[in-house]
Amino acid sequence: MKVPHLVTALKGPLLDLERRVLAAQPAIEHWLRAKWQEHSVPFYCSVDLRNAGFKLAPVDTNLFPGGFNNLSPEFTPLAVQAAMAAVDKVCPDARGILLIPENHTRNVFYLQNVAALVGILRQAGMTVRTGSLLPEIDKPTEIALPNGAGLVLEPLRRKGNRIQLEGFDPCVVLLNNDLSAGVPPILQDVEQAIMPPLHAGWHVRRKSNHFAAYDRVAREFAELLGIDPWLFNPYFESCGKIDFRGRQGEECLAGYVDEILRDVRAKYAEYHIEEQPFVIVKADAGTYGMGVMSVKDASEVKELNRKQRNKMAVVKEGLEVREVLVQEGVHTFETVNDAVAEPVVYMIDRFVVGGFYRVHTERGKDENLNAPGMQFVPLAFESPCLPDLAGAPDCPPNRFYAYGVVARLALVAAAIELEETEAATGESSMPVQAAGRS
Amino acid sequence: MKVPHLVTALKGPLLDLERRVLAAQPAIEHWLRAKWQEHSVPFYCSVDLRNAGFKLAPVDTNLFPGGFNNLSPEFTPLAVQAAMAAVDKVCPDARGILLIPENHTRNVFYLQNVAALVGILRQAGMTVRTGSLLPEIDKPTEIALPNGAGLVLEPLRRKGNRIQLEGFDPCVVLLNNDLSAGVPPILQDVEQAIMPPLHAGWHVRRKSNHFAAYDRVAREFAELLGIDPWLFNPYFESCGKIDFRGRQGEECLAGYVDEILRDVRAKYAEYHIEEQPFVIVKADAGTYGMGVMSVKDASEVKELNRKQRNKMAVVKEGLEVREVLVQEGVHTFETVNDAVAEPVVYMIDRFVVGGFYRVHTERGKDENLNAPGMQFVPLAFESPCLPDLAGAPDCPPNRFYAYGVVARLALVAAAIELEETEAATGESSMPVQAAGRS
Repeated sequence: MKVPHLVTALKGPLLDLERRVLAAQPAIEHWLRAKWQEHSVPFYCSVDLRNAGFKLAPVDTNLFPGGFNNLSPEFTPLAVQAAMAAVDKVCPDARGILLIPENHTRNVFYLQNVAALVGILRQAGMTVRTGSLLPEIDKPTEIALPNGAGLVLEPLRRKGNRIQLEGFDPCVVLLNNDLSAGVPPILQDVEQAIMPPLHAGWHVRRKSNHFAAYDRVAREFAELLGIDPWLFNPYFESCGKIDFRGRQGEECLAGYVDEILRDVRAKYAEYHIEEQPFVIVKADAGTYGMGVMSVKDASEVKELNRKQRNKMAVVKEGLEVREVLVQEGVHTFETVNDAVAEPVVYMIDRFVVGGFYRVHTERGKDENLNAPGMQFVPLAFESPCLPDLAGAPDCPPNRFYAYGVVARLALVAAAIELEETEAATGESSMPVQAAGRS
Repeated sequence: MKVPHLVTALKGPLLDLERRVLAAQPAIEHWLRAKWQEHSVPFYCSVDLRNAGFKLAPVDTNLFPGGFNNLSPEFTPLAVQAAMAAVDKVCPDARGILLIPENHTRNVFYLQNVAALVGILRQAGMTVRTGSLLPEIDKPTEIALPNGAGLVLEPLRRKGNRIQLEGFDPCVVLLNNDLSAGVPPILQDVEQAIMPPLHAGWHVRRKSNHFAAYDRVAREFAELLGIDPWLFNPYFESCGKIDFRGRQGEECLAGYVDEILRDVRAKYAEYHIEEQPFVIVKADAGTYGMGVMSVKDASEVKELNRKQRNKMAVVKEGLEVREVLVQEGVHTFETVNDAVAEPVVYMIDRFVVGGFYRVHTERGKDENLNAPGMQFVPLAFESPCLPDLAGAPDCPPNRFYAYGVVARLALVAAAIELEETEAATGESSMPVQAAGRS
């Protein structure tokens, strides 16, 4: 199962796109190096991609990636090396890292991700301990994991402006908690460096800000390659003041759905694509694939039944959805063992360190795969960063190089987005007071 | 053959040493990070280690490593990532790298190394072309290699203070030529950055300077770990004004051989080691395992016959040996398929990126293995940087972590050595005029 059997219906523009990406590799890497001179790279990031054959685009960018346990273990050295580079830069004198995970104690899959992260950072030579925000973790608590790994969650404590564990005063805090519910008081006004910064949390972050930054990055990149930016950039719009349960803001949604479908239809005509356009409607803040729907006509967002409205109305931590992203749907034409699949690419610092296919046997090529029942198939990861100029564009190493490039475009967009959020919310070290419930 | 079958006679201090190295991993990595704040890391480096069971030490440090073709191809991504980090630092705007190899056109094994290096740098997104110092390369010359790779050697040319190829003005020059014969005029007063610097060449470099720096690094490291530095540091002395053919300087040699054997005997007694001490006598400048002999008694260096004297008198490029390093011999107790083996660790920037065992079926555990008939077995390289704290010290990942640490100590020593040579020879950009023959 290590080398997934890729079935991709590749024809037309994407082959051309991939050929151009491969041919422009030195220019692309040079351009990316210049970007990292201008912008600070986030500590880590994962990007969900969709490969439609005629189009290859990011659809979601996660600044608190879970799923490190799904990467192929034989490529852990890549992640370790990248983590060394990241630590060198962020805090060369750091030895102690405090990792703060999500508030899960029973989701062992997520906790395996935390254990994998701890492993990577330890192998990079750091002293790593895991501090939980959960009040019930009032003493060091060992959790046994199905893959044999163990994880100790410890209670966080505050000493003046420093955050600590018992007998552990870390120099840097690594968040693997997306702060959906806001910045808890214990994390406010902390003097240690926090990575990613607090304003990367979903209490501040908006997908629409990310994709606005991505739009600019994609345009510049498209110019470098001399191609249409649409080939790796999904159209999007955002609506505020939505109230699904109260049926407020449906006109905004319906209007944008219509507008995007019209624009996509024009592009499909231009490229002779016969697929049916669709649009993804999802919460502008939030993750875990909650609050996502796929629509093919504006009327669908006006005819939501109570169950659908309830499903869209609430995301993680029970937060009400008020702002919504309307995004061009990108078909996925990749399958793994006949199931629809989309690649997820993981980065630490500016390096691609692995990836996997998110696979769903119950979903279609125009549906969200980040849903219960999904499975993970590690990418054959010797390939992603190793394009073979002699091979055909659709041979896996070349496909994966293109994935790595598009994922890194999203990473550049995330860096710009964070700069802009920082400017908008004040000092990066000043946590934003959020209206969260916890 | 990928995972070599290690047979090591491990007992006593090394197990203890490895246990301490593993336990001190965060302290070691932190200490190494601090070193790279103080010193510029060479672009690349390979280190020959000897593992005597009771002692693990570097015996040779190469600043122009050949043998990249002997690394396990599945770990090329590590080398690519490290090369990206190195390029970022040395020359963030660089896109064009000019690689200058040794003057070999028929040594296809060496040329496979050059092709492997070109591959790594291309995969890191650089435009790489190979310029030859050989006068007979007067036009681009394609060389087919046994492993299927191809390599094009092109004639170098000078335009003012820039070194170029036809239609190629690189921003950085990467030397894979050790300048044994001095700095050729075409490389003098070049305005582009040259990596490693010209004074890293064997026309300037002396092993005794390297091991003097290593001695200080090893002492500091030993203090960090609270152990005897001798456990990873071979004794050495150097003699100048040697003339093997004219039988000059033999007293100096014999005296130091005697002194070192006496010191080693005392250490062997201290650690209850029953092996017979030996000493390696080798040219203080130069490589390729030429001009090396293994002696067990001072009388042996006084009783050299004409053939032995001739063999010691001349190294690569026909250069006369005038300065000699007398170094404590370190037994190798490792074998691969019953043949004596020593590990060689490769680094790019500050990262361990691979390694192999140099194996020789015709040599003993107290002999130089860098000799005709040697073979190469790639290290199972997921392991080297991934110590498993739960495993025994002698399980391969832990053995390899210790190898990576000792190799990186030699890398720190190389960095210090280069600083000191730079200070001694003037500006790094001022090539040293050498008395070479070409």
